[in-house]
Amino acid sequence: MPKKVDHDERRREISEALWRIASTRGLDGVSLRDVAAEADISLGRLQHYFRSKDEMLVFALRQINQLAERRIREGVEKAAAGLGQEPPPRFVLRACVAGMLPLDEHSRIGQLVAAAYFARAVHDERLRAEAQEGIPALRVFFAGLLRRAAERGELPADRDPDDEAMILISLVDGLTAYTLLHVHTPEEALRLLDRHLDRLFGAPVGR
Amino acid sequence: MPKKVDHDERRREISEALWRIASTRGLDGVSLRDVAAEADISLGRLQHYFRSKDEMLVFALRQINQLAERRIREGVEKAAAGLGQEPPPRFVLRACVAGMLPLDEHSRIGQLVAAAYFARAVHDERLRAEAQEGIPALRVFFAGLLRRAAERGELPADRDPDDEAMILISLVDGLTAYTLLHVHTPEEALRLLDRHLDRLFGAPVGR
Repeated sequence: MPKKVDHDERRREISEALWRIASTRGLDGVSLRDVAAEADISLGRLQHYFRSKDEMLVFALRQINQLAERRIREGVEKAAAGLGQEPPPRFVLRACVAGMLPLDEHSRIGQLVAAAYFARAVHDERLRAEAQEGIPALRVFFAGLLRRAAERGELPADRDPDDEAMILISLVDGLTAYTLLHVHTPEEALRLLDRHLDRLFGAPVGR
Repeated sequence: MPKKVDHDERRREISEALWRIASTRGLDGVSLRDVAAEADISLGRLQHYFRSKDEMLVFALRQINQLAERRIREGVEKAAAGLGQEPPPRFVLRACVAGMLPLDEHSRIGQLVAAAYFARAVHDERLRAEAQEGIPALRVFFAGLLRRAAERGELPADRDPDDEAMILISLVDGLTAYTLLHVHTPEEALRLLDRHLDRLFGAPVGR
């Protein structure tokens, strides 16, 4: 299906133009025309692929999340190969949350697109649907890891996996926001996240 | 100084027009002209008070933060009067973080303006200055409360007040974001926050 491949490729190219704008001047007030110019195609051609800014934004966000997921999965698999066994749940959880922080240029751009998505989604029910599907799925995944850690005796029994999963997701989100605002460095955000994980898993104090 | 009072009053009126737009359609792509129309004044008159959208945004954000601070302070003072003594540090801390969540229409609008600020500030150094002053000050205040709680034997000795203060601020921020995205209700956000405080203060488990 060469035709289909072309379409996907073109959508990716347009999405990358959107990322470039997101990572430089931001997406506030950016029009389809601006993105078409950045992608070096006509407005009509762009509208053939995306009918609205929101449609484009959701596509770009999904793509960024997929790339982040793949990056994190590859990191975990590499570590598993090094260990010669399945890595412990805490290791996987830490890799996921660290992968969500804007520690490198890829994840920083991802979070800038997410910031633009957030500012629009708070006012748009259809845009919110994306977060309303993605976040509960992530919560279930994290809760599963915490449940497995509890079964292995690696998490204190009084921790509620579902609650702790959502607390962790929210914490990463807030730490990310303050990293993007340069209130603290990405490294400081990671250090605070590790502090939280230490306490969650009941690790030796005073680390 | 009736002239000065007039100016402040007019700035507040314009700021309120901005809030109304923020709470309905959002601020993405909103121009000074749009805000002038909502405030029912001419663009030229608006520009006499605010030269740019960003200047207006920072003013509106400061004003909202001041109102929120006053609301929280009044709540704490009322509780203190009821108790007949200074309320414990945990009580004050809980009042502050609960007051930051979008639990009512006032704080919801405040958070919507903050969402618009965030999306622009990640790309603008001058706008970021607001967060870079405000958040460290809040962190110092929260850390002071945690330090007092530790002195009173109400917080386990191994908690680092500065780190826990920033973790708490970030958590509230993330919980707020997911409340605005309707991933969970404001009440659920408050429940998760209380869970976190329970664990931070080492309260009896299984609550």
